[in-house]
Amino acid sequence: MDTICAVSTPPGVGGVALVRLSGGAAKEVAEKLLRTPHGKAVVLKDHKAQYAHLYDDRAFVDDVVATFFAAPHSYTGEDVVEISCHGSVYVQQRLLQVLIDNGTRLAEAGEFTLRAFMNRRLDLSQAEAVADLIESRSETAHRLAVSQMRGGYAQELEKLRQELIDLAALLELELDFSDEDLQFASREHLKDTVGALSDKVARLVASFQTGNALKEGIPVAIVGRPNAGKSSLLNALVAEERAIVSDIPGTTRDTVEESMTIDGIRFRFIDTAGLRQSDDPIESLGFDRAIKAAQQARFILFVRDMSVPFDENACEDISYITDRCDMKDKHLFIVHNKCDMPHNSTPQGIVISAKQRTGIDELKRDIAAVARKEAGQNDGILLTNSRHYEAMKHVLSALGEVRKSLEVGLSSDLVVVDIRDALYHLGTITGKVTTDEVLSSVFSRFCIGK
Amino acid sequence: MDTICAVSTPPGVGGVALVRLSGGAAKEVAEKLLRTPHGKAVVLKDHKAQYAHLYDDRAFVDDVVATFFAAPHSYTGEDVVEISCHGSVYVQQRLLQVLIDNGTRLAEAGEFTLRAFMNRRLDLSQAEAVADLIESRSETAHRLAVSQMRGGYAQELEKLRQELIDLAALLELELDFSDEDLQFASREHLKDTVGALSDKVARLVASFQTGNALKEGIPVAIVGRPNAGKSSLLNALVAEERAIVSDIPGTTRDTVEESMTIDGIRFRFIDTAGLRQSDDPIESLGFDRAIKAAQQARFILFVRDMSVPFDENACEDISYITDRCDMKDKHLFIVHNKCDMPHNSTPQGIVISAKQRTGIDELKRDIAAVARKEAGQNDGILLTNSRHYEAMKHVLSALGEVRKSLEVGLSSDLVVVDIRDALYHLGTITGKVTTDEVLSSVFSRFCIGK
Repeated sequence: MDTICAVSTPPGVGGVALVRLSGGAAKEVAEKLLRTPHGKAVVLKDHKAQYAHLYDDRAFVDDVVATFFAAPHSYTGEDVVEISCHGSVYVQQRLLQVLIDNGTRLAEAGEFTLRAFMNRRLDLSQAEAVADLIESRSETAHRLAVSQMRGGYAQELEKLRQELIDLAALLELELDFSDEDLQFASREHLKDTVGALSDKVARLVASFQTGNALKEGIPVAIVGRPNAGKSSLLNALVAEERAIVSDIPGTTRDTVEESMTIDGIRFRFIDTAGLRQSDDPIESLGFDRAIKAAQQARFILFVRDMSVPFDENACEDISYITDRCDMKDKHLFIVHNKCDMPHNSTPQGIVISAKQRTGIDELKRDIAAVARKEAGQNDGILLTNSRHYEAMKHVLSALGEVRKSLEVGLSSDLVVVDIRDALYHLGTITGKVTTDEVLSSVFSRFCIGK
Repeated sequence: MDTICAVSTPPGVGGVALVRLSGGAAKEVAEKLLRTPHGKAVVLKDHKAQYAHLYDDRAFVDDVVATFFAAPHSYTGEDVVEISCHGSVYVQQRLLQVLIDNGTRLAEAGEFTLRAFMNRRLDLSQAEAVADLIESRSETAHRLAVSQMRGGYAQELEKLRQELIDLAALLELELDFSDEDLQFASREHLKDTVGALSDKVARLVASFQTGNALKEGIPVAIVGRPNAGKSSLLNALVAEERAIVSDIPGTTRDTVEESMTIDGIRFRFIDTAGLRQSDDPIESLGFDRAIKAAQQARFILFVRDMSVPFDENACEDISYITDRCDMKDKHLFIVHNKCDMPHNSTPQGIVISAKQRTGIDELKRDIAAVARKEAGQNDGILLTNSRHYEAMKHVLSALGEVRKSLEVGLSSDLVVVDIRDALYHLGTITGKVTTDEVLSSVFSRFCIGK
């Protein structure tokens, strides 16, 4: 393998930046460029941090600390040298240039982790978890990535795979003795086993909506009549977000959406246009978007002004939304707003004043409690990755075929084909089965330097 | 000293981030949080990179590599632990939170370097050079910072200081024998010495304009009549900037300015509104700004359309600018543009076509050559820091007083007061003399984590 290099720390200016080298020539190249403060040659020792001056042919480049990790005890499984330099844009660029001039090449996105995968330091789902971990913005997203990275998830998949292999082996054994028309397993027992496996896979497939929402931020649509206080609610929810300990930027926001973390779970609150049929085409466009936001949300907060009576108009509005959404996987919260205004009766349920900021903490706690309960389903093993989701759907449909074949009493050899198909798709998740296409789509998600 | 912590790598998301701990409890706190992959306690060893799992009371936080640097052989001179973790925003924040919960506190900007200064790991001008180094965007800015950090500059100042101390000592010796009215040094000799010192200091003071421009980017104003091709020239200059080896962002641009590096020197090209008296108040506002840009520039590129004759109108335009600028420290380049168009005569000097991109490389080379020559003045020892510039101006004025006192034959005790004053201001540069105010202004320039 050739030797690759990249800046592994976030782009931009900071106190320190880390440049990583991996490959057979890593140690040699680094030692060629490094000198002790007294101008002597540097001999890098395994796992030792060594202070040195880095030169190129012409001139002093920087004071650095270089650390050598000898193969196979490194991130990639190859020889790795990490050079910690001053975090200026110029020093980072210059250092890369010097390394490239000395026979290394710039790493592609995710190439360090790709090499780790190639050297069996981690499996494919663990490699993907590394990318998820780097992108994680909340405790739950972090926990899901860690669980995937540390193998709880892979163990679950491996168990599934083992059961399928056993099943296939049993049926293949029957094939070997097909002349004798033997059946090693009762068809009823097989059907039960496949049924149980299918249920397990179906639960995993179903967990994707939760898992993906937890990873990307759970969408919460705020809907209701004009002037019910939707935008005030959004502001009240966001204004109280606990100050974070450092000012690390990076949150992307768009005009109608605000993200925030409640009790370790990331939510995306989407403010929508007020609901009401309208002749104005522009207004009714906003109205369509509100319905669409509700359709894509996991939570719908229906905000109403409690100073006006809760009459059939409000009920109509609510059913207008629920009729247009698949409510099976959604939670509808009716939020009675403006409790600070004169009102005739105090309703049961969620009563707030967005303006006075009363009841907001309770609302957040209620939403977070529901989300947290969902996060705990399947013992916390959730599909979070759309590639895994697609593969798992293939597994599920192959198992469906197996079931059908068993029902109609097809011969073992035909049943085995479908089990092998299920195994194939399961294998693509952990990387037992890989194609260049899969690898390149997995690793292109990474940042350069990882 | 209490123990401080901060993320030392650039803010944002990347493969890896580095969290730094410094202070008496650094090792203890880190060891409390770290476990081997087999769950055993970790004992950090000096200068050794150790792979570990980091936990807080509740849960696994991240896979990390921790490196311990025992005092005094660390950046700060105190015990330091560097923890390299996954570069997600969440992990970085969580790790800081865990460290703070365990008795450390978030470092202020520059506090690690402040501690290095307090522990005499570097002097004040070297500490400032670290900040310059981190901010450097070009070879020249980098070289100036390195020279200041590695002490070439401090040596020059120390030589100056020693000469002043010798002078003061000589005069104070005379004071001890003042009853006997002795003169140990001829007044003529003293005047010569002070004169030579003054000249040296004056050269350093004068070097600030070059030094500062080299550090911040040398301002180049592009002026000329409307439609002379000023914006095309800016585009042509910038378009040919050599592709950089990595896409590290961070260059701040504003609407009228483009920065680029030519031959290792950073330039800031400022496009201006076309010159010409106008009754339109908005147009004439742009015109004022063009003059102001010329006044603040080190280079003025006067662009003219060579397809129209070089008549007295053009001469008027040029003298209109030069009359309003102090041309002593500026370079005026007359750029004859549109050589691709029909023209009567080919002028001497710089002939280009911004549109066809001809002559652009030559123009850049000419500008860079002049700038490089200036960068080499004073053996490359240039004032780049406005705090040093202010202090040096005080030194110069104190030396002026010394000269005057010697001229009029004032007594030694009065002369010594002014020499001490010069020494005081010289001392503020390297930190021999410091006040809390100076320290806080120096270190507030730093980023957090350095």
